[in-house]
Amino acid sequence: MADVKQTSTWLSLLSHRRLVGGLVLRELFDKDPHRFRRFSLEQEGILFDYSKNLITEDTVRLLLDLAREAGLEDWRARLFSGEPVNHTERRAALHMALRAPDQDWKAQGESVSEQVRTILARMERFAEEVRSGAYRGCGGESISDVVHIGIGGSDLGPRLVLEALASFADGPQVHFVSNVDGVELERALAHCDPRRTLFTIVSKSFGTLETLSNAEAARAWFLDSGAGEAEIGRHFIAITANTERAVKFGIDAEQILPMWDWVGGRYSVWSAVGLPIALACGMENFRRLLAGAAAMDAHFRDAPLETNMPVLLAMLGLWHIDFMGIGAHAVVPYTERLATLPHYLQQLEMESNGKSVDRDGNSVSYPTAPVIWGQTGTVGQHAFFQALHQGPQPVPVDFIGVASPTTRFDDHHDKLMANLFAQAEALMRGQSADEARALMARQGLKAGEIERLLPFRVFPGNRPSNVLLLDRLTPERLGALIALYEHKVFCQSVIWRLNAFDQWGVELGKQLADSLLPALREGDGLDQRDSSTRGLVEHYRAWRSQS
Amino acid sequence: MADVKQTSTWLSLLSHRRLVGGLVLRELFDKDPHRFRRFSLEQEGILFDYSKNLITEDTVRLLLDLAREAGLEDWRARLFSGEPVNHTERRAALHMALRAPDQDWKAQGESVSEQVRTILARMERFAEEVRSGAYRGCGGESISDVVHIGIGGSDLGPRLVLEALASFADGPQVHFVSNVDGVELERALAHCDPRRTLFTIVSKSFGTLETLSNAEAARAWFLDSGAGEAEIGRHFIAITANTERAVKFGIDAEQILPMWDWVGGRYSVWSAVGLPIALACGMENFRRLLAGAAAMDAHFRDAPLETNMPVLLAMLGLWHIDFMGIGAHAVVPYTERLATLPHYLQQLEMESNGKSVDRDGNSVSYPTAPVIWGQTGTVGQHAFFQALHQGPQPVPVDFIGVASPTTRFDDHHDKLMANLFAQAEALMRGQSADEARALMARQGLKAGEIERLLPFRVFPGNRPSNVLLLDRLTPERLGALIALYEHKVFCQSVIWRLNAFDQWGVELGKQLADSLLPALREGDGLDQRDSSTRGLVEHYRAWRSQS
Repeated sequence: MADVKQTSTWLSLLSHRRLVGGLVLRELFDKDPHRFRRFSLEQEGILFDYSKNLITEDTVRLLLDLAREAGLEDWRARLFSGEPVNHTERRAALHMALRAPDQDWKAQGESVSEQVRTILARMERFAEEVRSGAYRGCGGESISDVVHIGIGGSDLGPRLVLEALASFADGPQVHFVSNVDGVELERALAHCDPRRTLFTIVSKSFGTLETLSNAEAARAWFLDSGAGEAEIGRHFIAITANTERAVKFGIDAEQILPMWDWVGGRYSVWSAVGLPIALACGMENFRRLLAGAAAMDAHFRDAPLETNMPVLLAMLGLWHIDFMGIGAHAVVPYTERLATLPHYLQQLEMESNGKSVDRDGNSVSYPTAPVIWGQTGTVGQHAFFQALHQGPQPVPVDFIGVASPTTRFDDHHDKLMANLFAQAEALMRGQSADEARALMARQGLKAGEIERLLPFRVFPGNRPSNVLLLDRLTPERLGALIALYEHKVFCQSVIWRLNAFDQWGVELGKQLADSLLPALREGDGLDQRDSSTRGLVEHYRAWRSQS
Repeated sequence: MADVKQTSTWLSLLSHRRLVGGLVLRELFDKDPHRFRRFSLEQEGILFDYSKNLITEDTVRLLLDLAREAGLEDWRARLFSGEPVNHTERRAALHMALRAPDQDWKAQGESVSEQVRTILARMERFAEEVRSGAYRGCGGESISDVVHIGIGGSDLGPRLVLEALASFADGPQVHFVSNVDGVELERALAHCDPRRTLFTIVSKSFGTLETLSNAEAARAWFLDSGAGEAEIGRHFIAITANTERAVKFGIDAEQILPMWDWVGGRYSVWSAVGLPIALACGMENFRRLLAGAAAMDAHFRDAPLETNMPVLLAMLGLWHIDFMGIGAHAVVPYTERLATLPHYLQQLEMESNGKSVDRDGNSVSYPTAPVIWGQTGTVGQHAFFQALHQGPQPVPVDFIGVASPTTRFDDHHDKLMANLFAQAEALMRGQSADEARALMARQGLKAGEIERLLPFRVFPGNRPSNVLLLDRLTPERLGALIALYEHKVFCQSVIWRLNAFDQWGVELGKQLADSLLPALREGDGLDQRDSSTRGLVEHYRAWRSQS
């Protein structure tokens, strides 16, 4: 199958799309009292309601035909069996092995579960020592703060999980440092006592510019406090695949946890990269997170496509992107505890599928990963929802909510959740001219004023959204939610014929930054660059020298 | 002019776009050594480089013709003269009056500058009292913490400014609470001693659900500490247009600062809504912020379109949206101090211009406000930049950087900024097959491997970006930067024939949430709703009752 756009199912979906284009969601709901039951399912304490998309049963059937035609079931089997689905780098993508360590997983034929169990046991021992206070800093005191230094996949996962599970945290305080601008590091260190602080440095190569710059600055700060070089070993942990470089940095070999080839950065929160989660919340909660993800893995692997949550989520996304022509997708969690989720999914989806060359090296002729963006509700309602409701371009939304309150402000919670359900309803229903007139009349407006304002108070409606409702925000549910999106992304990559597990697109900028750094520092080599780069760097140098 | 798409300039731009579509940016730079000088300008310490857009001098000329044809100069004059440009609500939009209080501004003929000066003087006195410690809480101690409660425009502005100007803050610690989920309030109160905490409650109507819920919870917390009702007056400040409701809440009439009809929520940081800025950074720095914005106002008002920064920024945006067909725009600040800027601009642009009915009440036939989104660099590089470089849909980027370091980690700064310039360069240049081959050969790859990986290591380039480089991150520069975007949004609204200053699209969700709340609490009225809303609320109620 060279071009998925030439398959009969793709063509059927195109003509089906023209039919569906004339449908009106609120009429579909009026006609079919079972629409919700038809288009929703529940798994691992997550209710997935996709009934407010512009779809019929035929749409779903055709989308699943497309998935089958693209070999989704076969690709899913290859993924789980540890084949090198990341073919450009000749690697498996077996993050699922981290979540079910009691099973026997093989990456390209080689058993990996034994080493996973070993590392989990090491994490457990270490987390317990630190949390119990048995582990002492160089001043003989227990550890009060952890500074986690990493960027991208080494940062976003632990950041998301610790924000989400704040109410489970009873260990040392974790601070995150990722950017190379110094602000984050400065903020983090302001809270820390060097003798009671542990640094976890995460970089697969132990050569990531941002991470190493921050790690070196952290080490200098630590040594400035009067600690000796020999004490770095007690205060710095590395999570890396490059032991040699970490040792050279000053980290004890026993204080190094591995990263594996068969786990990509954006799928690494389940590995030793998640150490700060174990430190803050305890290993039991980390294992609950893994178990939730493993349950979603089993569902994804075993359920038929028709009732498979990741598959349905993927195919509905694809419907909007490739058939409705919508290049953006909003994620709006109705809880501040998931405030980082839009950023996490932005990386997961856009770094995995933001590609335009298929696995055979051919240019694709269809849109792939949309722009993933969003903000928490109700905050977003007071910011960009105007455009969602009345902008000319519809944007599908994933609304995410939690049924149980996560704070003691119990009365707030019903208000929060009423807003979630109401927004999804409003996007779907809209407000007709008659309804707008009636509303304004109730508000006491005069007839002339009503007609003057009418066009501005009509809402077109018919705008698609999903709702994902979690019963509680526990480690298990969070694990399942993240795994749901991971598999969604994998399913889409299969239809788009992409390798979801490489990321060549981040390389060029790195090379150019390396080659540009001497120009910023010394003005070297600027005459080789275009006039814009030259002009910018010249301004930079002039302004910086004045400061 | 009923339809801007039928004007001769719009049609000329459409055919010009076909010409430009064949151009290659790196060739344009090769051919013209003056391209940077031609397509950049500097104003108020901000260098705006727009040379890396797919434009020629003809493009700019045609875009400015379009602006003139749409009456931009006339609309600009109407804006500054205080005419009711917000015609649906019959209000002026005169936030500029707040920034140049020594001039004589008129909103719909009525002088407003006297009251602006009065309020600034009141803010100044109050800020000085609090900062000096003369103002005492009910326990007789000075104020250590401010909890600012507001949402949308009442929140995003002060939040952005205080994050950006953290190094100027030497007063009480300000905490922000906006969402109604309780997490933010819980976090903020955990830091606060009730006897030393001031609450600033911001709501134009003093009836915003989120703000009132949080204000009431804050009051209960305050009273729980043993303080009496009579002491609320010392600890709660209101910024509102509804004095009556604020007084009823328990706030002293003298502790109420006004909000004015002629200042929209998303343009209100310059008003008394900015009080926490004055409390944390001092009134002098708040006035510097105003002065920076006023300087940009003067530039926007007086400069010819050809050298007018907001006009050029606006027309380039419009070029991408309406002629290149790109519905998203990324904002990537290379400093954590501006981490909130993408959210701020998301509201500013999408709430102002996320509309599809023009000022005469006709449906528009062209795309308007794009999805505004982003993350700080270099963080974004490790997340979504893959899609920017190699995704099938180009997304224009505004890169924002500061020449002077804002932290003591001086060595970090060159690395950070080298990345900014390199990313803009990489998007523009891309990497050809020959360059990719040469690179892989240098990396020691064998011929077969080079050919295998080649398609994945090519970057198409030719992707547009702007760079805004600030000399320093001072209150003046920040004021100018925000005002730049405000006027950009206004200019686009003129071409699109939109009223940028209303926001009817936020109403429907509010109404539906109000009507849905009894259903969540008591199950009332559910049979009136569609099966999805009903199913969701039923799940919610069942799950919530188990918790």
